[in-house]
Amino acid sequence: MIINMLEGASEQHTRNVIESVRSAGYQPHVIYGTERTIVAALGSGGNGVQLEAIESAPGVESVIAIAHPFKLASRQLKPERTVVNVGGVPVGGEEIVVIAGPCSVESREQLLATARAVKAAGAQLLRGGAYKPRTSPYDFQGLGEEALHLLSEAREETGLPIVTEVLSTEDVDMIAEHADLLQVGARNMQNFALLRRLARMNRPILLKRGPSATVKEWLLAAEYLLVGGNPNVILCERGIKTFETETRNTLDLAAIALTKELSHLPVIADPSHGTGRRSLISAVSKAAIAVGADGLIVEVHPCPERALSDGPQSLDLAGFAAMMRHLSGPPRAIAGSAVTFRTQ
Amino acid sequence: MIINMLEGASEQHTRNVIESVRSAGYQPHVIYGTERTIVAALGSGGNGVQLEAIESAPGVESVIAIAHPFKLASRQLKPERTVVNVGGVPVGGEEIVVIAGPCSVESREQLLATARAVKAAGAQLLRGGAYKPRTSPYDFQGLGEEALHLLSEAREETGLPIVTEVLSTEDVDMIAEHADLLQVGARNMQNFALLRRLARMNRPILLKRGPSATVKEWLLAAEYLLVGGNPNVILCERGIKTFETETRNTLDLAAIALTKELSHLPVIADPSHGTGRRSLISAVSKAAIAVGADGLIVEVHPCPERALSDGPQSLDLAGFAAMMRHLSGPPRAIAGSAVTFRTQ
Amino acid sequence: MIINMLEGASEQHTRNVIESVRSAGYQPHVIYGTERTIVAALGSGGNGVQLEAIESAPGVESVIAIAHPFKLASRQLKPERTVVNVGGVPVGGEEIVVIAGPCSVESREQLLATARAVKAAGAQLLRGGAYKPRTSPYDFQGLGEEALHLLSEAREETGLPIVTEVLSTEDVDMIAEHADLLQVGARNMQNFALLRRLARMNRPILLKRGPSATVKEWLLAAEYLLVGGNPNVILCERGIKTFETETRNTLDLAAIALTKELSHLPVIADPSHGTGRRSLISAVSKAAIAVGADGLIVEVHPCPERALSDGPQSLDLAGFAAMMRHLSGPPRAIAGSAVTFRTQ
Amino acid sequence: MIINMLEGASEQHTRNVIESVRSAGYQPHVIYGTERTIVAALGSGGNGVQLEAIESAPGVESVIAIAHPFKLASRQLKPERTVVNVGGVPVGGEEIVVIAGPCSVESREQLLATARAVKAAGAQLLRGGAYKPRTSPYDFQGLGEEALHLLSEAREETGLPIVTEVLSTEDVDMIAEHADLLQVGARNMQNFALLRRLARMNRPILLKRGPSATVKEWLLAAEYLLVGGNPNVILCERGIKTFETETRNTLDLAAIALTKELSHLPVIADPSHGTGRRSLISAVSKAAIAVGADGLIVEVHPCPERALSDGPQSLDLAGFAAMMRHLSGPPRAIAGSAVTFRTQ
Repeated sequence: MIINMLEGASEQHTRNVIESVRSAGYQPHVIYGTERTIVAALGSGGNGVQLEAIESAPGVESVIAIAHPFKLASRQLKPERTVVNVGGVPVGGEEIVVIAGPCSVESREQLLATARAVKAAGAQLLRGGAYKPRTSPYDFQGLGEEALHLLSEAREETGLPIVTEVLSTEDVDMIAEHADLLQVGARNMQNFALLRRLARMNRPILLKRGPSATVKEWLLAAEYLLVGGNPNVILCERGIKTFETETRNTLDLAAIALTKELSHLPVIADPSHGTGRRSLISAVSKAAIAVGADGLIVEVHPCPERALSDGPQSLDLAGFAAMMRHLSGPPRAIAGSAVTFRTQ
Repeated sequence: MIINMLEGASEQHTRNVIESVRSAGYQPHVIYGTERTIVAALGSGGNGVQLEAIESAPGVESVIAIAHPFKLASRQLKPERTVVNVGGVPVGGEEIVVIAGPCSVESREQLLATARAVKAAGAQLLRGGAYKPRTSPYDFQGLGEEALHLLSEAREETGLPIVTEVLSTEDVDMIAEHADLLQVGARNMQNFALLRRLARMNRPILLKRGPSATVKEWLLAAEYLLVGGNPNVILCERGIKTFETETRNTLDLAAIALTKELSHLPVIADPSHGTGRRSLISAVSKAAIAVGADGLIVEVHPCPERALSDGPQSLDLAGFAAMMRHLSGPPRAIAGSAVTFRTQ
Repeated sequence: MIINMLEGASEQHTRNVIESVRSAGYQPHVIYGTERTIVAALGSGGNGVQLEAIESAPGVESVIAIAHPFKLASRQLKPERTVVNVGGVPVGGEEIVVIAGPCSVESREQLLATARAVKAAGAQLLRGGAYKPRTSPYDFQGLGEEALHLLSEAREETGLPIVTEVLSTEDVDMIAEHADLLQVGARNMQNFALLRRLARMNRPILLKRGPSATVKEWLLAAEYLLVGGNPNVILCERGIKTFETETRNTLDLAAIALTKELSHLPVIADPSHGTGRRSLISAVSKAAIAVGADGLIVEVHPCPERALSDGPQSLDLAGFAAMMRHLSGPPRAIAGSAVTFRTQ
Repeated sequence: MIINMLEGASEQHTRNVIESVRSAGYQPHVIYGTERTIVAALGSGGNGVQLEAIESAPGVESVIAIAHPFKLASRQLKPERTVVNVGGVPVGGEEIVVIAGPCSVESREQLLATARAVKAAGAQLLRGGAYKPRTSPYDFQGLGEEALHLLSEAREETGLPIVTEVLSTEDVDMIAEHADLLQVGARNMQNFALLRRLARMNRPILLKRGPSATVKEWLLAAEYLLVGGNPNVILCERGIKTFETETRNTLDLAAIALTKELSHLPVIADPSHGTGRRSLISAVSKAAIAVGADGLIVEVHPCPERALSDGPQSLDLAGFAAMMRHLSGPPRAIAGSAVTFRTQ
């Protein structure tokens, strides 16, 4: 922590700051510059006092944190990558994993038709919403428990492990009976009561980035899960809110590369919410893989124009199969490069 | 709902859209333009089909909603303003109400000293965090139930009704025993499980705007409370996330005027979170009142430089009293205006 | 400047950084912590080397600037406030100055009718666009030189000094013959060629904040004018781009208080562009004054529904007069406050 | 254009709107719904009246544009893709084109060493700043004309065509004598005086997206060039401003796919400014190609830690060569996919 004194700070101000640093359990180190004085607080404190508050002390201009605030999520602590086992499917390993399925489970026919089709096209996990977080109370809120039973049936038939969202601490146990991967939605990324509850579950967690969360805030939300006892966390970049309105969100693909640099946790991308436009999903998915994502989560519906939620961003069954072929397609040619590829 | 067909859409595409509009319970109305065709869907549907999904149909370019999605929160439905009674204090009436107190309840001494001082300076309600939503799991998380008892004691001594935050459905009942106004924090604005639970409580709710929520999304979150049975909702603008880093958030004061135009609910401002800088709080509070806010919620601490949370944005006791005097100060002179004021 | 070494940085890395700091003209000062090493670079350099680039050196994690990058615009250098004289009207003094007029000069009748009306209502300066920056090349681009002559005529009749926008270095001289205050529009805030040209003019400058400019970037743009020789700079907050679409921009009123804390330059507010909605202008203007703005710039048109630009955010003549009365109205009552006001 | 009347609008209000639509050269078409009335304005107007202003008329709630505002840049007008010839190098064709070189030209040695190295690694065009737009007036502003001569010399030696930025209308002619592709920087995207001047040049233009420009605003800026007579426009996505501070900007890769869907113009990506972090450039570049970019523009410096500008985001010579190899590397394996590749 660096405490930056005001240019006109008095010697007594500096002495008070030094005293506060020491009483917070840090070692103070003072640098007297030509224009101003800086106090570095070394060590890691240890008695729970929040040193940031010293920004309020007389003579202090600002307090700047130096160290990363997350620990268990950090690659500094654990350089080797985490591979999360989801019902037998490794996420974070060598191969890209594709999760696919409808935004909401709407009916037995809709779910099973989708499950069969996405499996045939190469998906490894099945997604489907049972409890839906909807901006308006007048929109379809999900089939709830009925949907969970349908998801279990779909797993039985296809063998695909199940991913579904948890909205509330009260539903955690029931959902965990049916699902292999518990999703925390973007709007719940900082629902700390939910995170603390999920930290105690014996199920992997899919933690979506909040629409206005920085990468650091996202990793700190993961830290709640890790420090609470659940090491099986998969991160999911799903777009952030910006001024651009042509796309539903702005998918921050560089954040995937950055998160993999800072953390050992697997990171996947959600091109459906990330763009909100069906026509962009295939191209953006290929980009997500190129940037280093460990997988994708994609919304697929047998008839998007009749979907009860997220129709405009859902692929139909043929569209999903085409996307899977596109992902495996050859790379584009770089002018001036001698390297080319051919299919074996 | 306006369905905007692509320029090259076929007559069959348009017929299909018309059919879908009709089967969703709306009356279709077609306009054939020189360049493109538009289908207006009139009425309010009624069979639960989400017409937005038709954006996925062949030949459709976009679907544009015309009507406001919130109903009970709207001034169109209820033109007269709502006044919410919080433990005997009316919020949303003629007079501006100031809520003040520490970010977190840290000790009996800290809370009572603050409560006495803010009461003396004119505050009408006492705030204090018992359960704290903290970005990092390593930060102080609040005293919990102990803090609730201290808040009750402070009310008994000062007569100030109590405002405190609810993080989880599981804590709702216990907190409601002690608090007069239940706060939903910005990060929980779209925690729909919590909103549904609070909608069934016999306590008024303070609903903060999420850091990336539009005014419409905020009013739809209020709609969850209203439609669930709780008419006593106070809105709170506390700043949104933008690229500006000099202030903690960007306080959107125009949104207060807009929200009061669109809705009958009272709206207050949080200059502490809205700016994150103590030196700006007094000026910004005066602006919030000028723009039409019904009140303020301000963080106050006897010794901000030792606060366990939000020190840099907390006023000390003397600073709060000075702010209250500033709020009641005379307006500034407008050049060319003949009107002036003097204190009675 | 603080150079923060990586946790695993070697002693040689640190030695290299120390050497680079010294050769850039700064005094290095090393702090060996328990977890990492920090190098502080003291002094002000002086040989033009950009120390930020050292972030690229092996073993360096980050470089953090401590000092403010603007100098002449800073209150640390010049604590007393600057008052800019615009054709005899002081801006930045005790009284609030209101600038009003049409977005674009459209005709002699339109301009003169507006000029007379805004003068009668109390405006001190007349605005009117001659050269218009329009997002689309197909929109009205302004009357150009003809508008300048009309503005001169309006000044002659009403006595109101003239404010108009400069889009290009090539128009500077001609516009300066007619205008008393030269406006740099938001989209040109970092048009450095234009800033350098205007720095050499003997005319005050109105510098609008860019839609994605931080307060620091804005003050650095002002620094271009000041360091180039023009001390007469008025800043104008006109809203920033955010995710909120209900308002055209998000007017950052706290930035006005902050800018006045950091700089001695006068700051005014543009509620027309800041909100884009006529119904909000009066309330937001009052808030801008309350937060500390030195003035307002407001779009007024005799018939906004026929305006060639910015109609939805323009007040009509009666609306402007009503706004001026509202600005001078009494403050609202604070519950618990004993202070009240009455009109003299 | 759809004019959406207020729920309580009178019949006379609607008649006035119909009249205004007609007098603006559009055909009005009225739809009387159960709750509100909608007026559609068909056709393309033609007499220069801005129909948006009708939002100001009594009884009108909002005006919604249906058609895209850009024409010449649109794929609806010109479905086949534009290939821009830059000194013999086609941009927008089958092969990806890489532009590389230093942020600023600093010296003959620096430029020539970089030019030789990037050519050897496969770059097709050489970038180098002569006139630099710098946030602070105290930062290095570029070598100006001297840099132009050095760039010409580098082209002579390596054969690489030259890309450099134009800051001002006054420098256009001189720069065009030396450069093959004239760059409009992000901060000048809406410098309409500069765009109009460049529209008359016989040189291709590289138009960067502004940091707060929507895709539509960007295409409208391109429209200024096209309608002014210059069909050779290359677009460049370089990141937008968001709340995320870990990266310098947020590179909007989905916007590349979207822009290629909406327009026939070539689009390249700038991973250097888009991320601001050297470690992310290689991964993000591969993603840009995967999403459909026609090329890249990358900052390269022989010694980034001594660069006079943009050091932290510049690759060194070996780093650039490694990036070029990475771009041509094999695609990653998709679980469940039978398709694999090998190098020929």
